[in-house]
Amino acid sequence: MDESLDFAAGLAREAGEIMRQNFALGMKKEWKEDDSPITVTDIRINSLVLEAIQKKYPAHSFVGEEGSRIIESEYAWVCDPVDGTVPFSHGYPTFVFSLALTKNGESILGVIYDPIMDRLLHAEKGKGAFLNDGRIAVSKDVEFSKRMLIETGGYSKLPTLPKVLAAGGCRVFTLYSAVYAGMLVASGELAASIYKSGEPWDGAAVKIVVEEAGGKVTDLEGKEQRYDRATNGFIASNGAIHQKLVDLIRPLLK
Amino acid sequence: MDESLDFAAGLAREAGEIMRQNFALGMKKEWKEDDSPITVTDIRINSLVLEAIQKKYPAHSFVGEEGSRIIESEYAWVCDPVDGTVPFSHGYPTFVFSLALTKNGESILGVIYDPIMDRLLHAEKGKGAFLNDGRIAVSKDVEFSKRMLIETGGYSKLPTLPKVLAAGGCRVFTLYSAVYAGMLVASGELAASIYKSGEPWDGAAVKIVVEEAGGKVTDLEGKEQRYDRATNGFIASNGAIHQKLVDLIRPLLK
Repeated sequence: MDESLDFAAGLAREAGEIMRQNFALGMKKEWKEDDSPITVTDIRINSLVLEAIQKKYPAHSFVGEEGSRIIESEYAWVCDPVDGTVPFSHGYPTFVFSLALTKNGESILGVIYDPIMDRLLHAEKGKGAFLNDGRIAVSKDVEFSKRMLIETGGYSKLPTLPKVLAAGGCRVFTLYSAVYAGMLVASGELAASIYKSGEPWDGAAVKIVVEEAGGKVTDLEGKEQRYDRATNGFIASNGAIHQKLVDLIRPLLK
Repeated sequence: MDESLDFAAGLAREAGEIMRQNFALGMKKEWKEDDSPITVTDIRINSLVLEAIQKKYPAHSFVGEEGSRIIESEYAWVCDPVDGTVPFSHGYPTFVFSLALTKNGESILGVIYDPIMDRLLHAEKGKGAFLNDGRIAVSKDVEFSKRMLIETGGYSKLPTLPKVLAAGGCRVFTLYSAVYAGMLVASGELAASIYKSGEPWDGAAVKIVVEEAGGKVTDLEGKEQRYDRATNGFIASNGAIHQKLVDLIRPLLK
């Protein structure tokens, strides 16, 4: 494990410990104007990561969901301190920490950490994807059926997507935790995780972890994109069904 | 805690230990003809409970998802050994054990156990609902908004329900674990869990746990029903929004 990855994994475990401590029923939640929740945990982890990166890599940018430090650099760290704040704040143990290093907008290193099940996924460009110490790979499923699971990210941004996918024959999950689902795509359990969002931290680590596991990650139109600035959401799939998903989603974007 | 409840809670913890041990990525799953999965864990826990009840309460019926022992009795134990086999077998730690005692079809005692977070819910008729040692209560939310979460049970049996609820303004979860969501209704985190199923084990424990927490559980038409035989699915809500849900669902049943 190289130094940057070791650093990112250490932050992930530190963030995970905070999440584990703070996860409880009846948690206090504030609501943002867009009706998405925020908790003290999101803010605390974001600060922790921002400060650690400022100290260790002062010449790198930091882009975080709850606060950024943008400087002129080809390198940017992109972080979702708690992916899945909706489940985190409502009793579902399905949330992860997500951190990627991008170079000129390309994800070259990523970690995703699930603190409840102690699952640390990590990947570096060209070196494969790992869950803790073991290599992982996406599923090979091609046929849409109830035995194929896809996470859609819900109704707020692509309201007809869940229905279109269900009509297409697969089993649709809606858990509001796109990176969590990305972790399960990389692990071969889900066929895809789809999320419409302008925010890069939802896709930055998923991009490299899923692709190093043999899958494919593009924007919602099937195109490559940068992950250090506003994005067009993402489709993270096992690769085998990627074009089919792009074809299903394209008409919904008009 | 009376003897029957103590017995049920002991079985729940024993079942939970098996689930915890067997929960892993890449789990072997068989698929039933209706495209729902089954694992060795479902079968093993069902047998464990069937045998324990046959030994301790030989005069009582047992109704389990993976095998029953039906005898002439006013009492029937109704069990879902693993509620949420879809998430259980695909890496999501959102599954529970569910067991209720019914008398002439009425749930008089229920336990729901989440082995990952060690959350044991229990309730007896007229004595309130508890999470481990603390009393729990449903939410008081009345207004539909993105800040209100409802679990729908997915698309397979009421395909238009998620869309209708989302159009109604609330945030829709689809996690294929109706009892898990019922646990979070009783705990005040979700406003409702809705499930269309003919099977009594999905609703039997939810019925008493949610109602003893101050909520309401009926069939999909808003009517009372027995939980020791085929049901018409259920709506488990905080009570405050129950009639609104019945009104939204009624047209979908035609």
